[in-house]
Amino acid sequence: MATYKYERPALAVDCVVFGRDEKALKVLLIKRGLPPFKDMWALPGGFVRIDESLDAAARRELKEETGFADVFLEQLYTFGAVDRDPRERVVSVAYYALVNLQGHQPKAASDAAEADWFALDALPKLAFDHKEILRVARERLRAKVRYQPIGFELLPEKFSLSALQRLYETVLDTSLDKRNFRKKLGEMDFVVATGELESGVTHRRAQLFRFDEKKYQALMKRGFNFEL
Amino acid sequence: MATYKYERPALAVDCVVFGRDEKALKVLLIKRGLPPFKDMWALPGGFVRIDESLDAAARRELKEETGFADVFLEQLYTFGAVDRDPRERVVSVAYYALVNLQGHQPKAASDAAEADWFALDALPKLAFDHKEILRVARERLRAKVRYQPIGFELLPEKFSLSALQRLYETVLDTSLDKRNFRKKLGEMDFVVATGELESGVTHRRAQLFRFDEKKYQALMKRGFNFEL
Repeated sequence: MATYKYERPALAVDCVVFGRDEKALKVLLIKRGLPPFKDMWALPGGFVRIDESLDAAARRELKEETGFADVFLEQLYTFGAVDRDPRERVVSVAYYALVNLQGHQPKAASDAAEADWFALDALPKLAFDHKEILRVARERLRAKVRYQPIGFELLPEKFSLSALQRLYETVLDTSLDKRNFRKKLGEMDFVVATGELESGVTHRRAQLFRFDEKKYQALMKRGFNFEL
Repeated sequence: MATYKYERPALAVDCVVFGRDEKALKVLLIKRGLPPFKDMWALPGGFVRIDESLDAAARRELKEETGFADVFLEQLYTFGAVDRDPRERVVSVAYYALVNLQGHQPKAASDAAEADWFALDALPKLAFDHKEILRVARERLRAKVRYQPIGFELLPEKFSLSALQRLYETVLDTSLDKRNFRKKLGEMDFVVATGELESGVTHRRAQLFRFDEKKYQALMKRGFNFEL
């Protein structure tokens, strides 16, 4: 039985996928193939079907428009300003994720004409309120890094502390003091030495570390403070 | 122009209002006056109108059903499981707030038959997926307390450190070690001594403190870690 007899907003999802390589933090955008904002860049997304959950809609739209199928999306925030879509009232549930850029080459499909990574400091003008959605996602990511560990999915199994520092630096978009960073890490117990050294370099080979998955997962739940 | 021609979910808002008195953390519930779940307790909420923002809908529904008009609601999470409403597909954007119970006596109105505060450890069975919404709100509140200051709106202008400790204890639902708590506070700089003593007690009058609003607001933005 239809319980709400009045006019309803359309319901959409949008996905903010951050990609990280050695140097920069990027975001995945698609070029719109249809109006409104035809030929403008936008976040991947689309309408929620009546018989699918919000999470499923976000995964489906991301896959349809960029080919990405293995991304762990978390719900970010729901954007409901009355005039955010020029066509009519559309409320959008936004999702976000952070992935390793390597191995994530987008393939445009569905109603997206193109799909590509853009550095956050060289963004094109975005459709709808997607600049605002991206801003909120950027803030959330930055905050999250401070009270939950990151990196598990973004680093090789064994990594040097310099690589871990570079990861934090790209996510936080700042440079960190090496000594402070290592002191902080010493206080955490989720990064453990493997006893092995870097290969592929001939001298000053760095020690390799790994995440202690149990402690990492516990910290994900309990949270901590990485005051950097 | 209606852009999405297919069937649409109905869109609702629900409000989790936590109330805190000296002893316990409570939640504001209404008794449903209409089916489904008629006569069961539920979170205040209702459908979003086509011409109002999500925030406005949450404020309106809370006011209509409980009389509360001055509550600062924050968006919590959007619940979109396909079968969460027995009538039809309804997606709900949940909001939450923490208020001082004193001065917040609910008055049932609109389609709520009753409205009242319930201690979190003595809840009635709740309608829809409201138990799950409440669980997520409780978790968010607990997490937030660890990286943002609370209390500004929940304590008198001048307060003893014991009163502040009791506030943290009710929100975290745990008892805290007095010495550790004071040591932690010493590291924060948003609680400052007023130089005044408690009135109304005749001996061992406690020192009174106040929040430094500027530092408090800065911490709200920057975050910190209150590892308790």
